[in-house]
Amino acid sequence: MSVYEFLNRVTGTTFSSNSELPFKIEEKSFSKNEVITKYNEVEQNFYFLTEGAVQAEVSKEDGSECILDFIFPNQFFNAYISYINQTPSFVQISSLSECKVEIINGMKIKELYTDSLLMNKIVRLVTEEKFIEKTQREIDFLTKSAQERYLDLFQSNPKIMKEVPANRIAKYLGIKPESLSRIRKDLLS
Amino acid sequence: MSVYEFLNRVTGTTFSSNSELPFKIEEKSFSKNEVITKYNEVEQNFYFLTEGAVQAEVSKEDGSECILDFIFPNQFFNAYISYINQTPSFVQISSLSECKVEIINGMKIKELYTDSLLMNKIVRLVTEEKFIEKTQREIDFLTKSAQERYLDLFQSNPKIMKEVPANRIAKYLGIKPESLSRIRKDLLS
Repeated sequence: MSVYEFLNRVTGTTFSSNSELPFKIEEKSFSKNEVITKYNEVEQNFYFLTEGAVQAEVSKEDGSECILDFIFPNQFFNAYISYINQTPSFVQISSLSECKVEIINGMKIKELYTDSLLMNKIVRLVTEEKFIEKTQREIDFLTKSAQERYLDLFQSNPKIMKEVPANRIAKYLGIKPESLSRIRKDLLS
Repeated sequence: MSVYEFLNRVTGTTFSSNSELPFKIEEKSFSKNEVITKYNEVEQNFYFLTEGAVQAEVSKEDGSECILDFIFPNQFFNAYISYINQTPSFVQISSLSECKVEIINGMKIKELYTDSLLMNKIVRLVTEEKFIEKTQREIDFLTKSAQERYLDLFQSNPKIMKEVPANRIAKYLGIKPESLSRIRKDLLS
């Protein structure tokens, strides 16, 4: 799916290609484990993932890494707080596998906010969808077991999840690597 | 703070009272432990909290309750996923203390989305702010200890937090009541 197709689905627009959108789209590929937005960088872009998987990580005071989010195809992502506030990012974004993205210049979007009903509507709807995703993840954390969340993750993205290292999956689920091994063994038996 | 003052701060508008807004505001009070939006109700409203504190809870399969969020003055709240999708809510919202709220008819807001640049801009900015709050809470969960998060909670809302029962604070922090007692004892010693 391309940005214009996603927007048609979520916002009810009827664009027939990316070139009809009120902003330019640039395509880019990343290889596995490449950093897309660095710690302390000020985010300038919106990214739309068309292939592969991406993670957003934060680093703890002791230097260890926590995984805030996995992003899968047909989702927008960026270092959101940094983008909104134009402050250095405390989140780092990197590729979990080979990826393809469509890039939108975030500064152009901010310009369009002043007068464009369409641009405000699009970003309102996309932000509402992101907010729902985040709330759903929080509810899952509170109400589902690690095993249930592991199964959800694999059922929704079976191909990509095979490429993601086990230690990252454990960090995303908020469990120890040993607990993940136990879950996997239980599911196989 | 009233809705119009909050919107002036967040969205840069220059309203001088609630009656100038493009939607009606109704004021309402709730006593402690009153349900504002029930489980399975379809959310019709936006609420803006002017006094007191509110919680959003979800219930687990075993019947126990998890606290998804505490809401403090000068924040909007509602059963968001239910409102957006107009589906029965799996979140219940209730007052933690005596509260005062300003209520906006959510259906009127949905009507205004079609043509109103201002309405789309306002809700985009408010949703961006809610998304940032939620992301920040998630980052805090991953990177801060329960003691640090307990201190943050009390420092940001000292008066209201004194009214909130300890078992609810423990549920919000995602810890056992015994751990909360230990944190409190450690902080006092």
